[in-house]
Order: sequence, then C-alpha cells, then structure tokens
Amino acid sequence: MTMTQARSEAATETPSGRLYLDDLHVGQRFASETHTLDEAQIKEFAFQFDPQPFHTDKQAAERTFFNGLAASGWHTAAITMRLNVESGPPLAGGIVGTGGELSWPAPTRPGDRCRHPLLTLRG
Amino acid sequence: MTMTQARSEAATETPSGRLYLDDLHVGQRFASETHTLDEAQIKEFAFQFDPQPFHTDKQAAERTFFNGLAASGWHTAAITMRLNVESGPPLAGGIVGTGGELSWPAPTRPGDRCRHPLLTLRG
Repeated sequence: MTMTQARSEAATETPSGRLYLDDLHVGQRFASETHTLDEAQIKEFAFQFDPQPFHTDKQAAERTFFNGLAASGWHTAAITMRLNVESGPPLAGGIVGTGGELSWPAPTRPGDRCRHPLLTLRG
Repeated sequence: MTMTQARSEAATETPSGRLYLDDLHVGQRFASETHTLDEAQIKEFAFQFDPQPFHTDKQAAERTFFNGLAASGWHTAAITMRLNVESGPPLAGGIVGTGGELSWPAPTRPGDRCRHPLLTLRG
C-alpha cells in the first residue's frame, strides 16, 4: 500500500500517548492519512476476495452496472481499517469492534484517494 | 486461499443458470463452500490492512483482549464475500450492495472453518 502522510490533528494528548475511553469526548475529531488506490491494487484484492468482472477486468467492467472498474467495497473497508490503525485515535488495547453499519454510496475508482476522518458521536 | 467443496443446495434453477430478483423468494436458502483459515492467511491480511498485534503476532496476541491470535474482522468479511461470489446465489449482474450491517460475535482463530449460508429474508 502507498500511504501518503496527511496533517494529523489528534485532538487529545495523554501522558502515555494512548487513549482510553475516558479520554474521548463527543465531538472529538481525528484526521487520517490518505491512501491512493490504483488499478493494480483493486484487481489484486478482488482476485483474492471479490472476483467479479467489475472489480477484476477494466474492459469487462465497462459493460456492467458500474460502467468501469471499481474497487470492492470490502477493499475500501479494509483500507479504512488500515487508516484507522495507522493514523486514527491511538486507543489503548487497540481498535476492536463487535460490529457496525457500512455504506458504500458511490464507487471507488482507480486514482481515488481514500481517507477516513473520525468523529466521536457518543460518550 | 484454500477452498474446500461443500454440499451445494441452490434451491432455484433457471434456464440461464442466473438468478434475477424475481427468482428469489422469502425463505430461500443457499449453502456456501467452506474456507479454512490458517495463521499465515490471518497474518498476511493483517499486515496489509489491520496491523495490530492480536492479528499479526501469535505470542503478543496472548497478552491482548483476544487471548490469542484472531483474524481481522475485515478478513472474515472479505472471505464471506469470496464465498458468496463463488458459491452463493448466481445473481445476474453480480453481487452488489450499497451497505449493510456487520456483526462479529466471536473471534475467528487459525484452523476455524468459515462458511456463509444465505437466507432470503425480504422479497
């Protein structure tokens, strides 16, 4: 993966540098680094986990619902996790969840830049 | 990925072999193949997308929340997609979604076998 550094605006500093749930407050924002997707990455992930023509074959993808190559939604989800781990809130114990909701409102194309700013919504 | 064949119980056959939404009915079940995860796969995915000790380092993982190596939830989600594409309902146009809900009720460990039977809930 190609990670390009983006401005960090971690809003909370603790002596250990790690955050506990008590350190989070509603409205707190965390920036993330940026990841640029390219055709090779899109195809590599798709051949392994989501082998459908709109994710694996640029020409065939033009004749599909997507009208062109698009990243698997599970690929962009996985990249989001990477961005969270590397530049999201430095949670003590790690970033662990038991589930959640996902939404893919638009296709992600080769050349698109992904980032994942986080906002604390509930205390 | 190592895919082991499982019994297929695709409940609907159409002349084209592809299913359209009209071909689905509530209560319809689709089996899936089985995928067996191992330590190497868990680490490979995690180094790329979820580099946290409980996913990348067997010994360090024993001192974490997970008490041992566990697959990234995004890894099991991606495997689920692969199982859907390869042995789920053969939907005409492909398997495409705009979002959904995820739940990871228990860790997935090396040696665990994943499968993903599908049930049509709404028409």
